[in-house]
Amino acid sequence: MLSQTVEYALRAVVTLASAEGRPMVTANLAKATDVPMGYLYKVLQQLGRRDLVQSQRGSKGGFTLRKKPEEITLLEVINAVDPFKRIHRCPMDQIQEVDVLCPLHHRIDEAMANLEKAFRETTIDELLCDAERPYPLCMTLHDAPEEEPASGTQAGG
Amino acid sequence: MLSQTVEYALRAVVTLASAEGRPMVTANLAKATDVPMGYLYKVLQQLGRRDLVQSQRGSKGGFTLRKKPEEITLLEVINAVDPFKRIHRCPMDQIQEVDVLCPLHHRIDEAMANLEKAFRETTIDELLCDAERPYPLCMTLHDAPEEEPASGTQAGG
Repeated sequence: MLSQTVEYALRAVVTLASAEGRPMVTANLAKATDVPMGYLYKVLQQLGRRDLVQSQRGSKGGFTLRKKPEEITLLEVINAVDPFKRIHRCPMDQIQEVDVLCPLHHRIDEAMANLEKAFRETTIDELLCDAERPYPLCMTLHDAPEEEPASGTQAGG
Repeated sequence: MLSQTVEYALRAVVTLASAEGRPMVTANLAKATDVPMGYLYKVLQQLGRRDLVQSQRGSKGGFTLRKKPEEITLLEVINAVDPFKRIHRCPMDQIQEVDVLCPLHHRIDEAMANLEKAFRETTIDELLCDAERPYPLCMTLHDAPEEEPASGTQAGG
């Protein structure tokens, strides 16, 4: 139910969190997250506008997180790229505003509120220190991101 | 986060439940649910294939629910038209299957499991007898569906 953009943004943030502050260039981040480079770059720009990531140019440049993993919630990442939708007004009520939602939309919104709460209460660092699942992303079980090239890299795509 | 098709299917089932067994022709159901008639007809066909609605031709024909509202859950309606998606395998794991999801997809799936449970535990009749919200759909506050025409109607669209 989460969009592809949300999925890609979460992969990027988790991977940057695992890098523990070492900058990652777009090409390496794309490989580690299995996201097309152009798509990933747009997602990183959206995350940058919400102050979740930052980029630095130069031979040791690349993307890093702007905040500590324990300060970033799943909901913040989701809202940065594809804001979580709640039902504030019944989509059928085109005639006049009413204060209460109908039971159908009230129930759906109640379920959405619980989902939003779960995402608000989970921080990125919780995904890094799960004893049963030592690797934050499945692909890293098989294909760890390569070391950054020593020079000539750019933060941008 | 629910698709338009799911939203329309839920409106149709709730409206048919409110009709308490009286058949509704597609045109009236489209008006009561504020759904384009062609779209609604396709949704009704999908619901029919899952034995949630049935249609009857003739002057007193139309669509009715095949089960009692207390026997239909929100999840059944959702699954009939756009099956609820859980994460059974990490979408990044293209190399080999692993039994455990990575922490990111495990957390997302856990949240999805709770959402699925909420939809499984809510039946259509619960939307009909909410004392605080006496109308099952917002639009019916303003624009109750008209009486069925006396003759010449067809169940189909």
